[in-house]
Amino acid sequence: MEKSEATTIDVAETSRESKGKAPLLRDPPAWVPAAVERQRAAPAYKRGVAIFDLILRISAATAALAATITMGTTEQTLPFFTQFFQFQASYDDLPTFTFFVIAMSIVTGYLVLSVPFSIVCIARPVAAAPRLLLILCDTLAVTLNTSAAGASAAIVYLAHNGNSDANWLAICQQFNDFCQRTSGAVVASFVAVVLLIFLVVLSASALKKH
Amino acid sequence: MEKSEATTIDVAETSRESKGKAPLLRDPPAWVPAAVERQRAAPAYKRGVAIFDLILRISAATAALAATITMGTTEQTLPFFTQFFQFQASYDDLPTFTFFVIAMSIVTGYLVLSVPFSIVCIARPVAAAPRLLLILCDTLAVTLNTSAAGASAAIVYLAHNGNSDANWLAICQQFNDFCQRTSGAVVASFVAVVLLIFLVVLSASALKKH
Repeated sequence: MEKSEATTIDVAETSRESKGKAPLLRDPPAWVPAAVERQRAAPAYKRGVAIFDLILRISAATAALAATITMGTTEQTLPFFTQFFQFQASYDDLPTFTFFVIAMSIVTGYLVLSVPFSIVCIARPVAAAPRLLLILCDTLAVTLNTSAAGASAAIVYLAHNGNSDANWLAICQQFNDFCQRTSGAVVASFVAVVLLIFLVVLSASALKKH
Repeated sequence: MEKSEATTIDVAETSRESKGKAPLLRDPPAWVPAAVERQRAAPAYKRGVAIFDLILRISAATAALAATITMGTTEQTLPFFTQFFQFQASYDDLPTFTFFVIAMSIVTGYLVLSVPFSIVCIARPVAAAPRLLLILCDTLAVTLNTSAAGASAAIVYLAHNGNSDANWLAICQQFNDFCQRTSGAVVASFVAVVLLIFLVVLSASALKKH
């Protein structure tokens, strides 16, 4: 009887001791599981977003590089000449195309240099600072890219159709190959714009709380 | 003496009772104050951002409206005419300027219609859904705005300087007033672009966790 009571007391004490220590060491209070679960679910989602961000970034860099190279190597010399025309067209004959090449080079360079930051976002999915930096720079890149694409599209349109009111003649009848290539470069730069818009929206949705 | 002891017991019981109830009702555990404080600090910061967002939005709408009206009412008829030129210039002579007017009207309309959403963000500073919607639409608006501004800038540059390689003559010698007004509209649209970039970055920083 005495032994039994001692045992009972021992058990009770152990139980009381474990109850005393639990909130600090082993048994978390009721609010912890939800928070921990949220913490665990958020990185999985955010890591997925970060990986998609990296893929989009590399695609956008490829499109921007293609646009730069296509425009930068555009040159056409017609196999005949007259007294009035030199019949040779290159991208730097038009200041807008020069701006296009410079702007798209900057965008390509930025996108390549931003890949390490994107990888940091994969490694640390919850970190907000690198992602916010990426959103800021991506927004600037999308603006630069769009202005180059829009300006070149206006000039390409003019080269294709001319303008009778301003007395500007279409030059694409003569420089067909030149016009084809510059149009291709403009299309590639618009692809880069669309990819960059996705990048900004995706990064912003990853910043959101869960 | 008996009364005094009764009082003491009463006090002790009250104190024990309050100790027993405290973690549930009044006295929060150690982890609560930080969370509550964070919850309270976040809306204050986010509300400030939302108010700044509204101000920026109204400024951008004003700039976009100014650009639309300036470009849309641009017309110049020279007081003399010859057999070859009609000497009359309007924004719809150039398709790019027509695109500019349409795009800037859309941007202005969007910015005006987004004001209620911005007010919702002031009323509910922590809500992420309206803010994410605003970021998405703002990014699209900044792209539309930039493409219109860039394209028109290219044409305005051409109108000012012409291009000898493409044999396009500068038309600003004749249509000086027309060129001045279109240049002003392009500048106003670039102001709207800068304000929209701030809007996107500001909204993104408000989505960030604290």
